[in-house]
Amino acid sequence: MSTELTGTDPSTSELRPRRRPRRALPLVLTSLLAAAAVTAGVVASNAVAPDTARTGPLVADPVPPAAAGEDLGDGTRLAQYEAVDGYKVFHLRAAPVAWEVAPGDVRQAYAYNGVVPGPVIRVNEGDKVRFVVQNDLPETTSLHWHGMDLPNDQDGVPGLTQPEVEPGQSYTYQWTAISTGTHWYHSHMHGDQEGKGLYGSLEVVPRLGDISASRDYRLMIGDGPLGFVFNGKSFPATAPLRARVGERVRIRLIGTGPEMIHPIHLHGGYFEVVAQDGRRLPFPQQMDTVTVSVGQTYDLIWTPTRVGKWMIHCHIFSHAETHHGMAGLVSIFNVDPPTVGLPLPLPLGG
Amino acid sequence: MSTELTGTDPSTSELRPRRRPRRALPLVLTSLLAAAAVTAGVVASNAVAPDTARTGPLVADPVPPAAAGEDLGDGTRLAQYEAVDGYKVFHLRAAPVAWEVAPGDVRQAYAYNGVVPGPVIRVNEGDKVRFVVQNDLPETTSLHWHGMDLPNDQDGVPGLTQPEVEPGQSYTYQWTAISTGTHWYHSHMHGDQEGKGLYGSLEVVPRLGDISASRDYRLMIGDGPLGFVFNGKSFPATAPLRARVGERVRIRLIGTGPEMIHPIHLHGGYFEVVAQDGRRLPFPQQMDTVTVSVGQTYDLIWTPTRVGKWMIHCHIFSHAETHHGMAGLVSIFNVDPPTVGLPLPLPLGG
Amino acid sequence: MSTELTGTDPSTSELRPRRRPRRALPLVLTSLLAAAAVTAGVVASNAVAPDTARTGPLVADPVPPAAAGEDLGDGTRLAQYEAVDGYKVFHLRAAPVAWEVAPGDVRQAYAYNGVVPGPVIRVNEGDKVRFVVQNDLPETTSLHWHGMDLPNDQDGVPGLTQPEVEPGQSYTYQWTAISTGTHWYHSHMHGDQEGKGLYGSLEVVPRLGDISASRDYRLMIGDGPLGFVFNGKSFPATAPLRARVGERVRIRLIGTGPEMIHPIHLHGGYFEVVAQDGRRLPFPQQMDTVTVSVGQTYDLIWTPTRVGKWMIHCHIFSHAETHHGMAGLVSIFNVDPPTVGLPLPLPLGG
Repeated sequence: MSTELTGTDPSTSELRPRRRPRRALPLVLTSLLAAAAVTAGVVASNAVAPDTARTGPLVADPVPPAAAGEDLGDGTRLAQYEAVDGYKVFHLRAAPVAWEVAPGDVRQAYAYNGVVPGPVIRVNEGDKVRFVVQNDLPETTSLHWHGMDLPNDQDGVPGLTQPEVEPGQSYTYQWTAISTGTHWYHSHMHGDQEGKGLYGSLEVVPRLGDISASRDYRLMIGDGPLGFVFNGKSFPATAPLRARVGERVRIRLIGTGPEMIHPIHLHGGYFEVVAQDGRRLPFPQQMDTVTVSVGQTYDLIWTPTRVGKWMIHCHIFSHAETHHGMAGLVSIFNVDPPTVGLPLPLPLGG
Repeated sequence: MSTELTGTDPSTSELRPRRRPRRALPLVLTSLLAAAAVTAGVVASNAVAPDTARTGPLVADPVPPAAAGEDLGDGTRLAQYEAVDGYKVFHLRAAPVAWEVAPGDVRQAYAYNGVVPGPVIRVNEGDKVRFVVQNDLPETTSLHWHGMDLPNDQDGVPGLTQPEVEPGQSYTYQWTAISTGTHWYHSHMHGDQEGKGLYGSLEVVPRLGDISASRDYRLMIGDGPLGFVFNGKSFPATAPLRARVGERVRIRLIGTGPEMIHPIHLHGGYFEVVAQDGRRLPFPQQMDTVTVSVGQTYDLIWTPTRVGKWMIHCHIFSHAETHHGMAGLVSIFNVDPPTVGLPLPLPLGG
Repeated sequence: MSTELTGTDPSTSELRPRRRPRRALPLVLTSLLAAAAVTAGVVASNAVAPDTARTGPLVADPVPPAAAGEDLGDGTRLAQYEAVDGYKVFHLRAAPVAWEVAPGDVRQAYAYNGVVPGPVIRVNEGDKVRFVVQNDLPETTSLHWHGMDLPNDQDGVPGLTQPEVEPGQSYTYQWTAISTGTHWYHSHMHGDQEGKGLYGSLEVVPRLGDISASRDYRLMIGDGPLGFVFNGKSFPATAPLRARVGERVRIRLIGTGPEMIHPIHLHGGYFEVVAQDGRRLPFPQQMDTVTVSVGQTYDLIWTPTRVGKWMIHCHIFSHAETHHGMAGLVSIFNVDPPTVGLPLPLPLGG
């Protein structure tokens, strides 16, 4: 019987919390993290949180041991990795950070590698992956790989499949990427940690061909201590998204919660739901509004037919507006004309 | 490249708020509106709202400029239109109204043409339509055509695709009805306007054949300032619905919110979900309870097999009852025997 | 025309509330009920509820007239019946009970036959069934057979299809089991009764073959006065569930509410949704999280591929944890190795 199946593989089954290595990891300090550290410093001097006496000021390290990749322009940052012994090795550092959810609205967040959401982990089906998780939070933590088929002792449930990871310690997970499609990773310690920002997209590209798309966006939906946020930002701070008429635009919706269910509506026609929880639908369904619960992922394909500014937003009104106008779970697609004259379907009766 | 696709058609792309014309529109004053005006008068004298000093009393005009059609007996009123230059021209007047949601429970509502929901807009695929929206509210507004494929500048999002329509002004939308099936229209100003009643069903009959049905009902679900209402009414004021054993009864469920998700349950067997957001399901699914989120529409087909009184209601108990019994999101189907002896399936084991 | 269809069958159409018979019914007093009675006694002396002056102490009878079957080890107790005149006759007694939802957390509940949920009613398609419901609650009640195709006067809606059943009275329902699959029964009096525990699973085994499964579990989801409970119990008191690698495990999820919608997530891969509201899906969909609304049932098939402890839980964090750790809507699958060497699919790249 395969040890993979029974979880007795000695290389993965032992629990391995250990002290954080003292050397700085050889990863790049991004400009974003530098800016975050500056902002955090301002916050620390101006508004010391009540619990800092116990845990120290909630600021990012001046030299973070792991960094997110560059922003691809839509809020996406790909996680960096090193190839070691046939494994793709990722470093994720959980730490407090001062996070600006909207202009002037800076909140105490928890982040992997300084960004909310954490960097996008994107690997190929069959990849052997390893994650070194450094806990620089003022409390214990744990990391769960939501939707993944993996050995039980890598599942990340504290008290059930592993001990809690203590502050200052690190913990290593490793498994083989079998479950293809759009999944996510998040703190499994409690909803407050997760709501503060400890989550990210986990994408496994299938060997036999991915969902074809001209663009590939993700909107992670949050409703916790950071407010109503797409990718950690509240409108108007949400990243505007670009597309062209006639393109196949992939939108990955991920419900991170920690508490609510959100019907996400796209203006300007309809989209097709092509996958749910990373699994292809046998018959894609066309909708203009899809209900995303905590824990779920949906892959949509949208082909814009009209130039203009098209909203995508939660249709629960209090999640997408205040008395001062649109806010929260709102983003805008800027749709440009096609670069070539695509043979689009003619509208009727025009 | 088609101007339709790029939204540069000069006949539609300019913003055209203008002063309301002084002449009365040649539309019928329905008996319902007359009754509403009387009721409103009573309310205005008995219970002046705190904000009326600023906005004036919240009563309907004695001579409304646009009227809803006759009640078809189930709460449905078809919107009236005039044919002008190849367009079907509808007039929608948004104004405060005193609305009786249940016997003795009169609330300050906002209504299109004096009724909640607004009149049903029902057109054919390919129709060229024009909507003259008159704002007689004490605040700015805007109107969004939910689920419609239309030019961006007709999408009705204030601050993004058009300016807010000021009180006393009117605004004209026009587009071609491409998106078939069950959709809806609503204020896109904020959830409070929408929750007060500024919404209605928007139905585009496909050229190649509609969903076949013996009866065609719609239940618009509201959970805002008017309470829990089907078509603007709370049980026992909800219109009773009629059907016969063996008929194909179409029920259009529309989640108008502004805030909640409602699992709608039908007693007496099951229904088939045949369309979602106006789009046919490739494989209809049988259910007895369907979850309707804000913004979604579902088309159900139910074939009653038994005579009697069958409830349809939200299954969240507090949305369908008080301590005094059933209330809110409840309606009753009265199912009569078939007019002819239909060859119904025999029940087993009887 | 069939009298079955029009509800005029004289044997079923008359309302028959009657005084409770004085004789004890010939059913077994289970050890669980005995324990509950003892616990209830303790509660009655230690913590008299404020309303007991009016209704009497909320304790179970020393000799209950109807009993649940034996616990099958997973919280399931099959309802017992007698065969009388071609009918399967079930006795359901609704009465207050002191119910321990978690160690030390004893709450005033309402129960059918002393257990929450009520005993599982499991019959075959085509069975003629009769239910004698004894109301030993301090208030009126009624019983609804959710999802069943039955005569209107057996539907259990007080004030619409029958009178309320007064305290001390009994009421008899009878119908033929036509609607196959997973359904449920519950008090239709109001949500408070239902939330206190008056519900149970109602399973009709189809003649032409049921969903094939090695194991058959049910998780009834509650969010009312008993807190967040699976089968009446809050983690860690939820019954642990067993399975083996390679088995087809059937999980029946039933949303009993009375108030909330729950996204239920299974760790360790994915499951297939094979039926909704008792109706087979034409194309089963793979998911790792399914949203269960009040009133809905879902049948899942899960084939574990890995040994270990796999959580199943609501993914709304506050429904599955407190500040002291996991609680509420959480249960654990203990997955053992297969008994024989099953030809499982090989994981990729291992």
